[in-house]
Amino acid sequence: MIINPKIEKYLEKLSFEEKNDPIIKEMEEIAKKENFPIVGSLVGRFLYIITKQKNPSLIVELGSGYGYSAYWFAKALNKGKVVLIDYQEKNIEKAKEFFKRAGLEKKAEFKVGDALEIAKEYKNIDILFLDLEKSRYLEAIQSLEKNLSENALIIADNVLWHGKVINEKPDKKTLAIKQFNEYMFKHYFSAIIPIRDGILLSIKNS
Amino acid sequence: MIINPKIEKYLEKLSFEEKNDPIIKEMEEIAKKENFPIVGSLVGRFLYIITKQKNPSLIVELGSGYGYSAYWFAKALNKGKVVLIDYQEKNIEKAKEFFKRAGLEKKAEFKVGDALEIAKEYKNIDILFLDLEKSRYLEAIQSLEKNLSENALIIADNVLWHGKVINEKPDKKTLAIKQFNEYMFKHYFSAIIPIRDGILLSIKNS
Repeated sequence: MIINPKIEKYLEKLSFEEKNDPIIKEMEEIAKKENFPIVGSLVGRFLYIITKQKNPSLIVELGSGYGYSAYWFAKALNKGKVVLIDYQEKNIEKAKEFFKRAGLEKKAEFKVGDALEIAKEYKNIDILFLDLEKSRYLEAIQSLEKNLSENALIIADNVLWHGKVINEKPDKKTLAIKQFNEYMFKHYFSAIIPIRDGILLSIKNS
Repeated sequence: MIINPKIEKYLEKLSFEEKNDPIIKEMEEIAKKENFPIVGSLVGRFLYIITKQKNPSLIVELGSGYGYSAYWFAKALNKGKVVLIDYQEKNIEKAKEFFKRAGLEKKAEFKVGDALEIAKEYKNIDILFLDLEKSRYLEAIQSLEKNLSENALIIADNVLWHGKVINEKPDKKTLAIKQFNEYMFKHYFSAIIPIRDGILLSIKNS
């Protein structure tokens, strides 16, 4: 699950983008300093490539923090926009600032409040990114199914929950994640990439 | 690097597709019995999702073995085709048989010979999958650059080479892989997913 730190260093050394983008660097430093959970540049680069390949019109994030993943999405967007939602105003304010400084604010909408309630206002979501409270993942996908576009991609973070999904006596949150995973493998075509805390990718069955 | 076997079991248990597809099951059993290197179902599912999202017309594989990765590509293809190339005739014959039994042979071309030479005959490659001799990765991408479509995706297997890329005194093959990785991060926008033996994803810079 956890990557060998030497491999991680090797991967970091290969990445030019982050060195050339002071905003990404700054966001990553804040994460380190404040112990704020971000997806990290391994996943960030991956989101960028997926977005470039898909060319989506609408990305909606549930649980944006101060915009690290949204920033990678926005950088990759051609025409579309990414909607950032977080229940903490100070996070969204910070995200806004980062996006403005990078000239990406036109590719984004910034929302403060209950992620699920706000997300419901959007139709034809091409990429749905779940990073809200783990106990609400299942509720989120079930209530947003009708808001997804035909060829939608769902990406969910933390689906291995620090490896706790294999515990014999899982706690409440772990159980919620397990139920969510089972639902996603049953009702969608899904894959889990076991990097960092586990990234789930799902598309509609066809 | 190596995934916790309990996590792996958890992921396996979630996957319905493989249980419903006897061909995938059979291919995986052969890999186990003959110790034949295949990308495995974690990566297979991932290739499937990427292909469904991208909807490519032409996928070319350099080093197909008996067709495990190509099979996942073909299952996901809508209109396009996947070209399987391997230098061993017996591998390609086995692949042909699997594809026929699954009714996927119309989505594939089967070629025996030098992967690089054969691949050069194809233009506008949408997905280039590299799994040939590691010492030839760099040569492969350099000579096939002009054969890629505008929005091409390059996928390369084994780019962490059993973790040897971090060795202080890398052997020849490891050095070749390292040079390839450096080239891909410099000339393309790349990400390495550290699952199994490391999967590189690259797109053209834009």
